[in-house]
Amino acid sequence: MFLSKLMPLNEAVSKLNDNQIIMDKETINIKDSYMRVLAEDIKSYYNSPPFDKSAMDGYAVIAENTFGASNNVHKTLKVIDHIGAGDHSDKEIHDGEAILIATGAPIPKGANAVIMSEYTSCDGDELSIHSQVTPGENISPKAEDIKEGQIVLKSNTLIRPQEIGLIASAGYNEIKVYKKPRVKIIVTGNELVEPSRDVDTKSKIINSNQYTISSMVESTGALVDVIHVYDVYDDVKEAIDNATKNYDLVITTGGTAISKGDVVLDAVDELGEILYHGVAMRPGKPAGAGVVNNTVVFTLSGQPVAAMSQFDVFVRTYLYRMEGLDYNFDIVKRESMLKIPSTLGRTDFIRTYSDHFHAKHVLNRGSGIIRSMVEANSYIIIDENNEGVEKGDMVDVVLFNTMNIEGL
Amino acid sequence: MFLSKLMPLNEAVSKLNDNQIIMDKETINIKDSYMRVLAEDIKSYYNSPPFDKSAMDGYAVIAENTFGASNNVHKTLKVIDHIGAGDHSDKEIHDGEAILIATGAPIPKGANAVIMSEYTSCDGDELSIHSQVTPGENISPKAEDIKEGQIVLKSNTLIRPQEIGLIASAGYNEIKVYKKPRVKIIVTGNELVEPSRDVDTKSKIINSNQYTISSMVESTGALVDVIHVYDVYDDVKEAIDNATKNYDLVITTGGTAISKGDVVLDAVDELGEILYHGVAMRPGKPAGAGVVNNTVVFTLSGQPVAAMSQFDVFVRTYLYRMEGLDYNFDIVKRESMLKIPSTLGRTDFIRTYSDHFHAKHVLNRGSGIIRSMVEANSYIIIDENNEGVEKGDMVDVVLFNTMNIEGL
Repeated sequence: MFLSKLMPLNEAVSKLNDNQIIMDKETINIKDSYMRVLAEDIKSYYNSPPFDKSAMDGYAVIAENTFGASNNVHKTLKVIDHIGAGDHSDKEIHDGEAILIATGAPIPKGANAVIMSEYTSCDGDELSIHSQVTPGENISPKAEDIKEGQIVLKSNTLIRPQEIGLIASAGYNEIKVYKKPRVKIIVTGNELVEPSRDVDTKSKIINSNQYTISSMVESTGALVDVIHVYDVYDDVKEAIDNATKNYDLVITTGGTAISKGDVVLDAVDELGEILYHGVAMRPGKPAGAGVVNNTVVFTLSGQPVAAMSQFDVFVRTYLYRMEGLDYNFDIVKRESMLKIPSTLGRTDFIRTYSDHFHAKHVLNRGSGIIRSMVEANSYIIIDENNEGVEKGDMVDVVLFNTMNIEGL
Repeated sequence: MFLSKLMPLNEAVSKLNDNQIIMDKETINIKDSYMRVLAEDIKSYYNSPPFDKSAMDGYAVIAENTFGASNNVHKTLKVIDHIGAGDHSDKEIHDGEAILIATGAPIPKGANAVIMSEYTSCDGDELSIHSQVTPGENISPKAEDIKEGQIVLKSNTLIRPQEIGLIASAGYNEIKVYKKPRVKIIVTGNELVEPSRDVDTKSKIINSNQYTISSMVESTGALVDVIHVYDVYDDVKEAIDNATKNYDLVITTGGTAISKGDVVLDAVDELGEILYHGVAMRPGKPAGAGVVNNTVVFTLSGQPVAAMSQFDVFVRTYLYRMEGLDYNFDIVKRESMLKIPSTLGRTDFIRTYSDHFHAKHVLNRGSGIIRSMVEANSYIIIDENNEGVEKGDMVDVVLFNTMNIEGL
């Protein structure tokens, strides 16, 4: 049931958006939260700094005691204590007194400024002041950075190391995050065999999709299982039915080409509803998706490069949004080193090697040739309103490494 | 034993290079190889394509039979078989014959070209040819892409999904990769407590470094364990001695400031050799490293932002090189939105928010303020020969997401 009329890419994407599911929440320890997505706002239980603290190594003083001091006119104070990092002093400063203080240490009672060590000289407990400071100078006031009760991180934020640090400092050791999607990959194809040294390449093809597509799922932070099913209609149907009941997302590869029986699409059609099949894009034209048991099933091509492109165009965005992220391609501009023809009405994802300035697409590669993806680090995207690009044109590029969860 | 003279950054890095260790190799299944680093060249066991195959949907023909065909002058051939994707035909084509063939299918015996379906019309088994093709046209010759025995991937390549696909297609289900470094983090500090809602912030500090630094280790693909040790010299020394005997790399945090006892550095000095302590950089000046039991020990600051910057500047590169990668910062150019003063002889790593064109550094933040790292997505690097940058200057920027293993 391949639809002879191809659907524009944005229409297929729109149908997916209408069927976007977002994962439930779970509570985890923050030590396990790297590259997870917050599912709650984080409000700080604490002020930061928790007290007025010194912003410099120097001496806590009463600012008024320094007024009039200069390189020529020194003022003299008595040092009554010293406060190292992590220490504090119970002493209170009175007129004529100072306390040696380290960066980050709490300002002692009575002081209202810190004078940097550079503007002083000290002999025993006698401190000579060579400059004046104003009240508040070199003090980081309590709660300057974060106020108790303030939201320091919003829900749906991706958690990098620094976010984990901020969450810990806010007083949390457990947080709510979106669950990781559990993805089942169903690889179809009678001709597929495991990699080995003695494959009969006349009749068999090494099953590389199970590895590429499952590691692409890994690259989004989702969890993945794979099975291989023969092109038998009832087997494929049963596999899809089971997977959609037990996983959050299902991906199939193979069984979508025009010249073969479309066992996968027929099974999806019988079990549920087809959202699209056949998209005006290259590579990856036979791309399909459906909904079975309230679960989206992506039907990717058997051809490795087509399947990878379809994953990047459809599945990746869907998975990130399941995870609570508002994901879109991070499009950058590069100068195309070559002329690239295209066709109005079709969106092209051209396998390309890009540096910081230029994009040179990988030439003459069919959609089965994985090596073209190995030579590439990016796609040039030529949208449907474009008949191609000339050498020297600035083109839209998405870098592969900005599509991985750690590259977002 | 803080060295009063700061070491230039490149001198510290050079001492690390002199002590660079590379991990041993191990053999793993390719299904576990995402983001691992190859430790062997991959030679293909197969030709790709394994046979002359059709590059188009069309008809396999003898090119000479089409000579003279045009829109006005049709030639007629008899269709004797059809070959779907994954199929093949044992029939041989003779003069006047053709075989319907799908993209990717093997060219049958006797044929030397494929004519695209668009240039034909077919009625039963009678094929009408409207165009001529030259010998070899629309055929991808055997081994065009990869020759048997050819090196398809070099050792020390980072394995993305497409590399896994290529490795599988080359006939490997197991490969040699560099072992993941096992890293021990020793967090020191009497004042550190676990995150909770009732921390006495006058005297205690929430231990956020254990989370930030361990997730930074995760971001390099290495394995990590953490312990917390009090600032007791013998305890710190024993922890460092044990860790350096049982792990590939050791990281400490805390105990390096000038105003406190340098228990960590003293312990490293007694157990082994200090490579550097005190580097002309900001933040992170107290950065140190040593070698104990032939294992590098990085002594990071207790202040969270200083520790993160030190990790990025020193530890990250060292870890990637342990893993077999030839890593350097991926420096991009951005226009600085603000004036930034610096000091000759010191290298600055300015916490910055960058878009594709501009870099706006995060203002007024001490090295203890994690929020500045949360607001930032990059560093502006101001090298030691530079007294600062003016607003509008093009500056060197390294984006945080290009420092993670999935962002490389």
